[in-house]
Amino acid sequence: MFVTFEGVEGSGKSTQMTRLCAALEAAGRTVCRTRQPGGCSLGQTLRAILLSQKTAGLDDRAELFLYLADRAQHVAEVIRPALAAGQVVVCDRYTDSTVAYQGYGRGLDVALLQNLNAVAAAGVVPDLTVLLDLDPAIGLTRATSRNAAAGTAEAEGRFEAERLEFHQRVRAGYRALAAAEPARFAVIDAAPSPDAVAEAVWGVVGKLL
Amino acid sequence: MFVTFEGVEGSGKSTQMTRLCAALEAAGRTVCRTRQPGGCSLGQTLRAILLSQKTAGLDDRAELFLYLADRAQHVAEVIRPALAAGQVVVCDRYTDSTVAYQGYGRGLDVALLQNLNAVAAAGVVPDLTVLLDLDPAIGLTRATSRNAAAGTAEAEGRFEAERLEFHQRVRAGYRALAAAEPARFAVIDAAPSPDAVAEAVWGVVGKLL
Repeated sequence: MFVTFEGVEGSGKSTQMTRLCAALEAAGRTVCRTRQPGGCSLGQTLRAILLSQKTAGLDDRAELFLYLADRAQHVAEVIRPALAAGQVVVCDRYTDSTVAYQGYGRGLDVALLQNLNAVAAAGVVPDLTVLLDLDPAIGLTRATSRNAAAGTAEAEGRFEAERLEFHQRVRAGYRALAAAEPARFAVIDAAPSPDAVAEAVWGVVGKLL
Repeated sequence: MFVTFEGVEGSGKSTQMTRLCAALEAAGRTVCRTRQPGGCSLGQTLRAILLSQKTAGLDDRAELFLYLADRAQHVAEVIRPALAAGQVVVCDRYTDSTVAYQGYGRGLDVALLQNLNAVAAAGVVPDLTVLLDLDPAIGLTRATSRNAAAGTAEAEGRFEAERLEFHQRVRAGYRALAAAEPARFAVIDAAPSPDAVAEAVWGVVGKLL
């Protein structure tokens, strides 16, 4: 089973993934928790480029291709072997992030991005995508506080530094993707307490076990 | 004017580019000499990944997307501004390398690669592509000696470490590309002396000035 988490900055993906992975392990499943970018050795180098505020003047298409390189390597090296071994793969961001951020956010052609995603993902499609839906104004406040507390604002804050309008387009993009593929997406309101959101996530994932 | 150099490892691209750039400058032109991968700040990081023999297990599609990321950034940051400033841009490898190496060499779909190149190059097409045509058996001997002499075998030798059959497919790919676009390509026999090859190159470039 392949589950991806999507959502704007600060929507609680990390917290909810931790909760879900613990619940899956308690249910006797072997879990592979991973992320894009950064889920393989190549990805760590690319993540540093993609998320650092020091990365200046990165061309939109160069950014796109770096995400796709990370995805292709990560699928080949991590996700496909884990699925073949019968593990539950839980991945922080996947193909939908590319369409939401580089398409709806940056304005690159969405149909092109879907084609490129298909090349990079090489047929590995999530069984379930959990979209943690949240007003980006709330999410950015959470994410900025988190990065400040963790001292990761410079290393990981390139997207948090984008304007609110950018993140509103990303959220709208996610909602459009979910509306187009209702069988794959579970849209969960991320505004309530972590406990309440975790319960909602488990309500969806538990049915698939 | 935008001139690219293509050819298998050891075909003499660096030597001939040095000769051509000197001749262009002697003719009063301002020259921007650059290369892919590695012609911009992002590209240096990517070049280290792409050409190092330490890079193990790189997925073919991940490799492709890294080259495309380098190309997109390099076009936006270096090539397009130099052309806009009226400079002659002379670039070591460009879109044809992707088709020859990742397509004919690795076996990725050539039509797909042409489409991806179009995205990365964003309309910046060479006025002239000099293909230094050489038997890879000769080229690899030259390239391996050069890397050994320069101490760059580990850092830059990932492709030299491919088998001869790989390089023969790359050469065949280059020839097919040149046959399909005879107006853009000049195919020059790279076996003769550097002086003779430089004269042949200048014979082609000089006509375009």
